[in-house]
Amino acid sequence: MSAVSDLQATLDPSRKSWVESANEPSHDFSIQNLPFGIFSDTTNGARRAGVAIGDEIVDLAALQAAGLLKLPSNADVFARDTLNDFIALGRDAWRSVRIQLSNLLSRDTATLRDDAALRAKVLVRAADARLHLPVQIPGYTDFYSSKEHATNVGSMFRDPKNALLPNWSEMPIGYNGRASSVVVSGTPVRRPNGQLKLPDQERPVFGACRKLDIELETGFVIGGGNALGEPIACADAEAHIFGMVLLNDWSARDIQQWEYVPLGPFNAKTFATTISPWIVTLDALEPFRVAHPVQEPEPLAYLRHDGDHAFDIALEVKLRPHAAKQATTIARTNFRHMYWTMAQQLAHHTVSGCNTRVGDLMGSGTISGPTEDSYGSLLELTWNGKKPLELKDGGTRTFIEDGDELTLAGWCQGDGYRVGFGACVGEIVAARG
Amino acid sequence: MSAVSDLQATLDPSRKSWVESANEPSHDFSIQNLPFGIFSDTTNGARRAGVAIGDEIVDLAALQAAGLLKLPSNADVFARDTLNDFIALGRDAWRSVRIQLSNLLSRDTATLRDDAALRAKVLVRAADARLHLPVQIPGYTDFYSSKEHATNVGSMFRDPKNALLPNWSEMPIGYNGRASSVVVSGTPVRRPNGQLKLPDQERPVFGACRKLDIELETGFVIGGGNALGEPIACADAEAHIFGMVLLNDWSARDIQQWEYVPLGPFNAKTFATTISPWIVTLDALEPFRVAHPVQEPEPLAYLRHDGDHAFDIALEVKLRPHAAKQATTIARTNFRHMYWTMAQQLAHHTVSGCNTRVGDLMGSGTISGPTEDSYGSLLELTWNGKKPLELKDGGTRTFIEDGDELTLAGWCQGDGYRVGFGACVGEIVAARG
Repeated sequence: MSAVSDLQATLDPSRKSWVESANEPSHDFSIQNLPFGIFSDTTNGARRAGVAIGDEIVDLAALQAAGLLKLPSNADVFARDTLNDFIALGRDAWRSVRIQLSNLLSRDTATLRDDAALRAKVLVRAADARLHLPVQIPGYTDFYSSKEHATNVGSMFRDPKNALLPNWSEMPIGYNGRASSVVVSGTPVRRPNGQLKLPDQERPVFGACRKLDIELETGFVIGGGNALGEPIACADAEAHIFGMVLLNDWSARDIQQWEYVPLGPFNAKTFATTISPWIVTLDALEPFRVAHPVQEPEPLAYLRHDGDHAFDIALEVKLRPHAAKQATTIARTNFRHMYWTMAQQLAHHTVSGCNTRVGDLMGSGTISGPTEDSYGSLLELTWNGKKPLELKDGGTRTFIEDGDELTLAGWCQGDGYRVGFGACVGEIVAARG
Repeated sequence: MSAVSDLQATLDPSRKSWVESANEPSHDFSIQNLPFGIFSDTTNGARRAGVAIGDEIVDLAALQAAGLLKLPSNADVFARDTLNDFIALGRDAWRSVRIQLSNLLSRDTATLRDDAALRAKVLVRAADARLHLPVQIPGYTDFYSSKEHATNVGSMFRDPKNALLPNWSEMPIGYNGRASSVVVSGTPVRRPNGQLKLPDQERPVFGACRKLDIELETGFVIGGGNALGEPIACADAEAHIFGMVLLNDWSARDIQQWEYVPLGPFNAKTFATTISPWIVTLDALEPFRVAHPVQEPEPLAYLRHDGDHAFDIALEVKLRPHAAKQATTIARTNFRHMYWTMAQQLAHHTVSGCNTRVGDLMGSGTISGPTEDSYGSLLELTWNGKKPLELKDGGTRTFIEDGDELTLAGWCQGDGYRVGFGACVGEIVAARG
């Protein structure tokens, strides 16, 4: 079989795994998915690369040591704290590993299926594992590419009649984020302190953020960078992307409102950004490619690409107060609503000559849909606190309270299987006194 | 002698070196300076740590190998591509190396002075060396802390009567920059392409920047970071700073003007930022500490510090057209004019809980003085192109033309010696066709 048909076979909806949990129709980690991450476990504290399959994790370092996973030059890239060295091997290597794993985990392949001793060496139960930040992130950029979100924010804080600024429709507006404070799902997030400008006082006061918010986003991870001065063409951009994660761009709205003119958000965002631990590859997302929204006016030439460059990824946000039994789903939307595509974002980012590096993270911007229950932030869902949300266990929310746990989820729905992202979770702890 | 008096002795204005070039009164690299950098040379292509002294560079790896430089646990940190591992040893180690070097290079110390074979091993002529980026930069932040600059920009683009925005006087406004494109002095800088909004056209056009500019800045390098959620107090902040460099924040004014609302500058800045190769330590700058400008209103408590936290650093900018014999000095100013101090910048940066890491670079923002010839950008010097500058060899400039070489210089003037930064140089090459 050719490499292309091998790759195609990894996407076959009828392929099942001998890891039975992976065959549950609503499990995020089907054999069609095979997302990459970094994990450790109670018996082996060393961080290493893994792939999620059902309720199990395949230990790639152990699999390679057992002679069951081949890499060019037998590269030693899996016994690492991050995926960067693996990703840097390039797309042919990612695809080769995907193909080998799909075959090994297939119900039809006996190698691991029928060898309990070998399985014990290379499989770790996800319940026994701790997941870590999957990549070392040299640079983090955040875009602002949902038309609905930009319109909502513009309506609230600027002019409802001209909510969308003129530049917004011409380019994927983005800004540099803070890479140091990107944390993996499950890391507690401390409510930030900062300057708050209260309406009844002439000068700002210092204190804990009173309008703490989420931003429901996805992020993509650069798999192949570009040299300084050498832009990435829009048509080539997806080949530079390793995969996607869920991303919660925690935002202190009151700090942001006071600080952001003229240089953009800073302390309102730099205290934490949470990402999901598993990177879902662009290869796994291929069957879920859909047309992106019509772009009017037609973008300038450097932002044009033929074909379908959006992806059908269902997204939802849940809020669970501390010790509450039930979480409340506060938003449901879809990544396909995004106006600017990832390819356009990357082409725009580099068109000035800016270089990117393996592991760079690029956030989509808040993903808001067209309806009031599809907005990707509390700012929009409660219209800046004017319309509190009802929670299942009683109580209401305008913005996040201490002890609230926020969970993002996302998945592509296939025919009888899912390609999902796992959870992106963060609980807010009280501000520093 | 105590460590404190040893450190004090390294600042003694009367101390001279047996490296005679270091004793020239206007040489940047006196024995009082001892800045750190990364170099390679024609006979040894490996990058390694060095200290500049007059026209020579001390090879710290070779000095340690020769048993003349002691570090705790004999740490192996100098035979490295960057200074990060050395810096991470902490302030006691930086100071110990400074004291040892000052003693070894002193005219009164025979060890190297009288041993030509040893000198040949540990000294490299600066003329034979190539200088590299001194640190791996995990994060780059740029501030906006000159009151004169912010007032000038506000006057030009917003309202001359209310040029300074209300938040500016309350906090050191800053934003995240792009670390990947920070380059070392001497690296050619390609003119960026991007979206330009011309006044006579409804939609933007794509093309080469027509208003390419410099921003005269300094930057400081983090020597000791802070954990996520644990701010650095203003009074402690200087202890977290390893040293300073000159920084040219190249800016595409036309791209910036169109893109920057509401999330701040992005492609207008991400194509390149040039820094000088030698990091001048805060210890070397100690004698040049001066009072910072009066801050009115008095800053909020978290931004207060006692004592003098500005530094008297003379700064100038030269422009030399390609192949021109003479450069023209287009601006002269001083770092002491900066309204917000480095300590306040770092305290503000971390007050939200944002973490910093060894090697993080923090730009001062454009340093403009009170007079028209002391502005730190062509935007201000030519008042957005309305008042062209006359060049020495004839011709004029509003913004930078292809082939122009821009050089920043900076130094502290001591009694008979200088603590200088060396040059921060970049030549502009034509945009990609």
